Amino acid sequence: MNEFEFIATFLAPLAAREKGALGLTDDAAIVKVPPGQELVITKDAIVQGVHFIGNELPGLIARKALRVNLSDLAAMGATPYAYFLALMLPSSVDKAWLEAFAEGLGADQKTYGITLMGGDTTHAPNALSLSVTALGLVPATKALLRNGAKPGDDIYVSGTIGDAALGLKVAHGTLQVPATARNYLLERYQLPRPRTMVGIQLHDIATSCIDISDGLVQDLGHICNASKVAARIRFDTIPLSPSARSALVSLENPYEIVLTGGDDYELLFTAPPAASAKLAAVANKTDVPFTRIGRISEGTGVRVLSAEGKEIVLSREGYRHF
Amino acid sequence: MNEFEFIATFLAPLAAREKGALGLTDDAAIVKVPPGQELVITKDAIVQGVHFIGNELPGLIARKALRVNLSDLAAMGATPYAYFLALMLPSSVDKAWLEAFAEGLGADQKTYGITLMGGDTTHAPNALSLSVTALGLVPATKALLRNGAKPGDDIYVSGTIGDAALGLKVAHGTLQVPATARNYLLERYQLPRPRTMVGIQLHDIATSCIDISDGLVQDLGHICNASKVAARIRFDTIPLSPSARSALVSLENPYEIVLTGGDDYELLFTAPPAASAKLAAVANKTDVPFTRIGRISEGTGVRVLSAEGKEIVLSREGYRHF
Repeated sequence: MNEFEFIATFLAPLAAREKGALGLTDDAAIVKVPPGQELVITKDAIVQGVHFIGNELPGLIARKALRVNLSDLAAMGATPYAYFLALMLPSSVDKAWLEAFAEGLGADQKTYGITLMGGDTTHAPNALSLSVTALGLVPATKALLRNGAKPGDDIYVSGTIGDAALGLKVAHGTLQVPATARNYLLERYQLPRPRTMVGIQLHDIATSCIDISDGLVQDLGHICNASKVAARIRFDTIPLSPSARSALVSLENPYEIVLTGGDDYELLFTAPPAASAKLAAVANKTDVPFTRIGRISEGTGVRVLSAEGKEIVLSREGYRHF
Repeated sequence: MNEFEFIATFLAPLAAREKGALGLTDDAAIVKVPPGQELVITKDAIVQGVHFIGNELPGLIARKALRVNLSDLAAMGATPYAYFLALMLPSSVDKAWLEAFAEGLGADQKTYGITLMGGDTTHAPNALSLSVTALGLVPATKALLRNGAKPGDDIYVSGTIGDAALGLKVAHGTLQVPATARNYLLERYQLPRPRTMVGIQLHDIATSCIDISDGLVQDLGHICNASKVAARIRFDTIPLSPSARSALVSLENPYEIVLTGGDDYELLFTAPPAASAKLAAVANKTDVPFTRIGRISEGTGVRVLSAEGKEIVLSREGYRHF
């Protein structure tokens, strides 16, 4: 199956709904932004050997590439709209792989209401890599930014933290846990769930927002830097799944993985204490738990305290690519 | 130099002019489209060992990645506006490489009036690869598409054809030519010149347009397929540079490289014969020569005739990635 057959057979149907995609047969796509809306654009790449191992099902790789981008849109409070895909493929992929990959894209198009609009397929000599550019829409001036956290604001996270970093250990075979926990943690690593519905509901409530992709402390540090504030969180208030709780018992340094592990793609946001009732309503409406893990103050930097009130010192704050 | 230092030191200054880039410190960028305009978006990746060799100057690699995308915008008649960059970097790159790479981006930002708005930097285990998403603006309904060629239309190309494919042979050391030709052909391969000003001037004149990235015959085939027409071109009317002309003499099959060689990034477009005076004015205004190389007719497929009127049969139509 050559490049043009792949595009015509498997990709063009994914773009059929969107007129501006021009059937994937033109040099570029045409995007019309509805009046009163702003376009939010994010672009993340995932690389074999870095963001995924390579032995995952092709559909899972496709969906993870989409979802890490949709998570960025969620963190901006944007509604997903469309995406572009650059696919760099080693010779080892065959027609069955390409078909399963496209099926994964198709499944998440339905889940998130998005459409393929364009991109590029090219050969790559070694590792498989993919870059997705995701487009979302947000009412003008309503985007959630990182720079609005104020002293006195509460710090919240959605869902549970640390699952994906533990799932990576499971995938690498370096963590032994019971089958139920194993499957749960692995899925949390392989198939993140962008908090799309949460982000949209946080307009006019959250004062800042980010998705946790590189580690809780590091990403909270990004909010602090952008907002010119300090943050203090309590380790024992960080929400853990039952699977993570059982897995952490066997680890030498449970702090490290929860505080600095990447790939959770939960939302980390700040809001004034007066917003707590509104937040409870959003959690209820979206069926996603929010947990208050600390507070913003004047100053700089992120401090983490143990249940006993002692400061936890980390050897690194989170994931760095280089 | 780590990821965040690279972004803050070398990339953030490239995004400073554009408020919607949010200083490259947020999860995504915010794009506002002026009333009456449509956004044109294209996304192309370039991979070491496929689109470039890897020993090129870092600034040239940066500029080529931008320019192959700007060429797509030119083919749509769009004015370049901004871009997103995903950079997948092997461990071999150091601070000097990153600085020179960013300088290349900066130089082309000035040349084409574009601004970095976001993206991603990540480690890659082997080859360097880059994906650029380029944004352009076009007055509503004025974009140049591939599907408007009509029987009777003339077929034109801008500039000269075959230079870049010969330049690739020079880069690989498989073509020996005098120094002047060598430098010219190499530059045509390493640093394409997107026909930005030409594309913008072709609104309401060209009936279809594409950029020649994968080979003249193959790209003309894309116009024919999209427009449901046939094309006939005369080989001896295809414009060649003096350097290409001198290099082709030594080649066994000069047809092949001119008709199927990639990377020229010239525009290939169609227009009714009545538009010839307007086209002459555009060529004059933009200082880019246009050459009529054939005519559109009813039917399907692309035929190439020699100066003697005999059909030239090709073993392949152009570059395919797989």
